[in-house]
Amino acid sequence: MIQVSLSPALVIGTGLVGASVAQALTRAGVEVHLSDARYSHAVVAASRGAGTLAELDPGAYKLVVVAVPPAALASVIAEALATYPNATVTDVGSVKGVVLAQLRATGADLARYCGSHPMAGSQKDGPLTASPDLFVDRTWVITPHDTSAAQSVLSVRKLAELCGARLVTMAAQHHDEAVGQVSHVPQLISALVAGGLLDLPAEHLQLAGQGLRDVTRIAGGDPKLWRQIIAANSGALRVELEELHADLGRLIEVIDDPDSVESFLDRGRRGTRALPGKHGSAPSEWAEVVIEIPDAPGALARLFTDIEDAGVNVEDITIDHDPSRPVGMLGVHVDPTAAMSLTNVMTAKGWTVKP
Amino acid sequence: MIQVSLSPALVIGTGLVGASVAQALTRAGVEVHLSDARYSHAVVAASRGAGTLAELDPGAYKLVVVAVPPAALASVIAEALATYPNATVTDVGSVKGVVLAQLRATGADLARYCGSHPMAGSQKDGPLTASPDLFVDRTWVITPHDTSAAQSVLSVRKLAELCGARLVTMAAQHHDEAVGQVSHVPQLISALVAGGLLDLPAEHLQLAGQGLRDVTRIAGGDPKLWRQIIAANSGALRVELEELHADLGRLIEVIDDPDSVESFLDRGRRGTRALPGKHGSAPSEWAEVVIEIPDAPGALARLFTDIEDAGVNVEDITIDHDPSRPVGMLGVHVDPTAAMSLTNVMTAKGWTVKP
Repeated sequence: MIQVSLSPALVIGTGLVGASVAQALTRAGVEVHLSDARYSHAVVAASRGAGTLAELDPGAYKLVVVAVPPAALASVIAEALATYPNATVTDVGSVKGVVLAQLRATGADLARYCGSHPMAGSQKDGPLTASPDLFVDRTWVITPHDTSAAQSVLSVRKLAELCGARLVTMAAQHHDEAVGQVSHVPQLISALVAGGLLDLPAEHLQLAGQGLRDVTRIAGGDPKLWRQIIAANSGALRVELEELHADLGRLIEVIDDPDSVESFLDRGRRGTRALPGKHGSAPSEWAEVVIEIPDAPGALARLFTDIEDAGVNVEDITIDHDPSRPVGMLGVHVDPTAAMSLTNVMTAKGWTVKP
Repeated sequence: MIQVSLSPALVIGTGLVGASVAQALTRAGVEVHLSDARYSHAVVAASRGAGTLAELDPGAYKLVVVAVPPAALASVIAEALATYPNATVTDVGSVKGVVLAQLRATGADLARYCGSHPMAGSQKDGPLTASPDLFVDRTWVITPHDTSAAQSVLSVRKLAELCGARLVTMAAQHHDEAVGQVSHVPQLISALVAGGLLDLPAEHLQLAGQGLRDVTRIAGGDPKLWRQIIAANSGALRVELEELHADLGRLIEVIDDPDSVESFLDRGRRGTRALPGKHGSAPSEWAEVVIEIPDAPGALARLFTDIEDAGVNVEDITIDHDPSRPVGMLGVHVDPTAAMSLTNVMTAKGWTVKP
């Protein structure tokens, strides 16, 4: 069995992501050394518990994490492979294919290199906002290539695990296609909408609500960072943007036809539900107990108190309708095993429960 | 001087917006009556303190607020004008021009009608999520027309004031153009991006982060409600969407050119800063005090403690660089009148402050 030790580690680049990785490793007991071309960043990171600025003999490092801007990745990785002869070298860049191609073009032995991409960050930047918890429960993609040594892959897996992330393994090209779709395209579309705001009179902008702010939030990200990401993935992005361009053209053609617009909107809503995690279990998993609400002030508050006293966990609440009777009805969605018990308790307390 | 009284008021339609208006009016001491074709909604709203289901003589009402879905607005407003002979009638619909045109086509006297649009809501719906605070500090547009009586305009102004909103007055057509730009277009673009997700493999979707969730959040809104809004404003929307379509086409043409991409992204970032409110004061208003950070664990924590003890309000913190010296420097942005005092206190405590 291959033993994997990451200590001592060197983190090159102490912006938000680098400093957060360093904090997480330090907390996990790894001896972490820091380096940054912008010395102030390294000092701030060190002062926030990310590691030390002291230097070791280059042969001592077991792991080097390169967390520099995308355009500098390949050269800093190649230099790290040459400088630190016993270290696994990884990076945390948002695009993997171009970097791998550039590294291959150098002719270097890449057995000790395995790329990775922790899917966390912020439109904020720099070590002041770093956190050792930045990657907890976030996706961390590792992108081994055909000449990555097993030891290198295991070291990067261990790095992601120590940071508390969920591991996903993909080929570099496949990763770039995926992040193009779920990260780079949304970034460009957010900038498209935000850029359009500059043409509007201030009087119109004062009508902006939370929806517009959500859609345009990521457009506040650093253009100098994002230009590098877009440049490194422009081939995949062109394909995706052309599809959206065609979809938008079709929407414009049917904008006067409410049925077509509703289909378009419905497709969008189904898309939001396809995103994992946030949108929870399907309603069909719950049982619905329908309770009549008397037309009296405070009835709903009493109803909720009685449901709470029943000790049943409420998953969702909907308002139900009976077109034939003027009566208020609330659908209480609960675990199917608790539905009978809730029905009995509420009936006993005098509520009318629909059979 | 014209006396304005809104009591008793009738709210027709007790979804999120109607029930919230009713709760706010009730809290302000207005006697509020509720009506809803979906009786359950009215019962739930009443039970949550929005008003009473009891009916008065039609001549008694001073104000009628119509809060029904967009497609039903014109007919319900016309019916309200006929049924309640002494009431100012307003609505809370998202689109004003079409409704006004439909009302004019009925030939009714519209002196007692003045449209309005509180800019608040949610992708959630229904009276269960209603709140009397929904409109506090939110924009509320009123759209008087050329035959609105002064009494009607004043009544609707008072309604918005009692709800705690910020008043903006616009012509209906002008309002529709503005909300098309800042609300309906973002809704459609969010749905465009979200709809594209349905074509992606689940493996790609698991790489989705917060940025994509923000961009697509409002696409989770009700397609049956939004189809009505889009239909009522499709003329203005077509123009806006065609501009975005052209902008997107131009982006695709230059996607391989990093300078052009950066210009595009920079324009987007400036757009986010054009939004009022959220993005605060320009950094140039603050004075920067630059303090050297020693390379020692905990230095930053001590620095922040000393700044706090100095009793100075910190507006922003940046990391500064001196390319010529390996030293960490923090820029502390404060009110210009406090900069000298901070410099003196920090120097006295032994910190090196850049002159």
